[in-house]
Amino acid sequence: MYPKAPELTISQWFNTDDPPSLGALRGQVVVIEAFQMLCPGCVSQGIPQAQRVQRSFGTDVTVLGLHSVFEHHEAMTPVALEAFLHEYHITFPVGVDEPGPVNGIPLTMQSYQLRGTPSLLLVDRLGRLRLNAFGHIEDLDLGAVIARLIDESPQGTDRLDP
Amino acid sequence: MYPKAPELTISQWFNTDDPPSLGALRGQVVVIEAFQMLCPGCVSQGIPQAQRVQRSFGTDVTVLGLHSVFEHHEAMTPVALEAFLHEYHITFPVGVDEPGPVNGIPLTMQSYQLRGTPSLLLVDRLGRLRLNAFGHIEDLDLGAVIARLIDESPQGTDRLDP
Amino acid sequence: MYPKAPELTISQWFNTDDPPSLGALRGQVVVIEAFQMLCPGCVSQGIPQAQRVQRSFGTDVTVLGLHSVFEHHEAMTPVALEAFLHEYHITFPVGVDEPGPVNGIPLTMQSYQLRGTPSLLLVDRLGRLRLNAFGHIEDLDLGAVIARLIDESPQGTDRLDP
Amino acid sequence: MYPKAPELTISQWFNTDDPPSLGALRGQVVVIEAFQMLCPGCVSQGIPQAQRVQRSFGTDVTVLGLHSVFEHHEAMTPVALEAFLHEYHITFPVGVDEPGPVNGIPLTMQSYQLRGTPSLLLVDRLGRLRLNAFGHIEDLDLGAVIARLIDESPQGTDRLDP
Repeated sequence: MYPKAPELTISQWFNTDDPPSLGALRGQVVVIEAFQMLCPGCVSQGIPQAQRVQRSFGTDVTVLGLHSVFEHHEAMTPVALEAFLHEYHITFPVGVDEPGPVNGIPLTMQSYQLRGTPSLLLVDRLGRLRLNAFGHIEDLDLGAVIARLIDESPQGTDRLDP
Repeated sequence: MYPKAPELTISQWFNTDDPPSLGALRGQVVVIEAFQMLCPGCVSQGIPQAQRVQRSFGTDVTVLGLHSVFEHHEAMTPVALEAFLHEYHITFPVGVDEPGPVNGIPLTMQSYQLRGTPSLLLVDRLGRLRLNAFGHIEDLDLGAVIARLIDESPQGTDRLDP
Repeated sequence: MYPKAPELTISQWFNTDDPPSLGALRGQVVVIEAFQMLCPGCVSQGIPQAQRVQRSFGTDVTVLGLHSVFEHHEAMTPVALEAFLHEYHITFPVGVDEPGPVNGIPLTMQSYQLRGTPSLLLVDRLGRLRLNAFGHIEDLDLGAVIARLIDESPQGTDRLDP
Repeated sequence: MYPKAPELTISQWFNTDDPPSLGALRGQVVVIEAFQMLCPGCVSQGIPQAQRVQRSFGTDVTVLGLHSVFEHHEAMTPVALEAFLHEYHITFPVGVDEPGPVNGIPLTMQSYQLRGTPSLLLVDRLGRLRLNAFGHIEDLDLGAVIARLIDESPQGTDRLDP
């Protein structure tokens, strides 16, 4: 019913010594903020929201950043990203979406068919893509969706909570 | 485990022809925003949040306002409240918390032991009080709590969702 | 060139033991915030701006509030206004615009031909009306206008500058 | 009484075909926003304020940006700045503060003894430095200062007013 979330194709990770993968994160709820460091909507809305998710849900979810550069490639280099992460106090792992060979669209952005940045991706405990939202999503709605993913069983969505 | 939510003691309802009661709302999730119309934190934060809940969760929850006046009684009369509801485009039912006989604390505020306004109360499908939060609560956290209450079975919290 | 600012017609003053009048304030720059306590735009924008003017310009200007009630008269009574001023920490003098005999428009609102609330009125050192702005005005623009009124001579606006 | 504003030392200009200089701008009021493109306070406060100044005062002032990079030099290159200016819709001329030979502090930043970014510099019609403010300055205060500089005579600040 839900599509499998494609594996992330990352050329370089920041904020982690242990490069994450969706495969290794199976069993956990993963929140992926796809952004570009020079995208105003990402800076003012998307990234602060991802930081709030990290603060509100703690270890119940894994928050990852995905730097999907599809414009101004020469400006948003990994070295520039590193400075950006430092200045904006971003502490979750951030992966550089692998540059694509042809049209400038990076590989993970292509496999998820992202429409732009910011985009928010939610992957459930079974590794399935449950949300792929371009633009702004209300915190109330996001909190509801994440809570429901957290409450799903790793064996499926059947629940027998107390 | 969870206490039963005391019935609301209301002297007058606005925005409804059919005065609600927690008894009659059994089976539904009820979100109650306790406020005073001249409380700045209620006007800038609590009430807009209740309006966002109404917008995000639609018919999955019942949003009620509770006007619990414990100061400036002569200023925050029912006729003043009616004008306030009109000006601030508040469309959910709002009940006037019945004035108390002695110390100026209205009756529902007393039975819920509210610490002030704004306070947010969440009542589950079984009529139990699940949240009694004074002051500000983050939308992400609130969205999560409400979603979980919605997902609980009317027969109890056991779930057998697909 | 500029019209004389009509005298304020006030039925009751708050936050002062010494009822101000434009006549007595001649020689000073007067900033008048016309508002209604249940007008959302007044509460969220107009009044906070008047408080910033008070903070930024200190004794260089006289800030006054004018409670011009033209709707919901029974809700926005003087006793309700007093509670409002307390809750919103409004410390400048606020006068109740004298209710009008016929159409519910108070007298000062009529003499200034205010279009609604919030309205900002600026009176120069010579008692002339220099600004009558309905709705929102940018702080940068307002700061510029007020500074220029402050810099005008009490004897007139002539300056050596071109 | 007021110090002469040191000439800007710029390695490259953006948003202009005609590189400005304080010398050539003598007679005009110049508003200089010193910033770094990866400084959060610059992005959220300083630059939007400079854009508001441009909008409010129009041709009465000349707004310039000064990109004074003193950290993360490898991230905030001219090519990155160009993308930033495009994404944030910055249309006033922006000069790259000439990198310093030794300690990484660019030359104009040194000559103005800037304490950091954002800093706001105001230069009067006579080329004198009238404000050098690090951090946030209220719009009301800034509007007042700029209006007064605009009103000063190019021949000096003498006025008939007291």
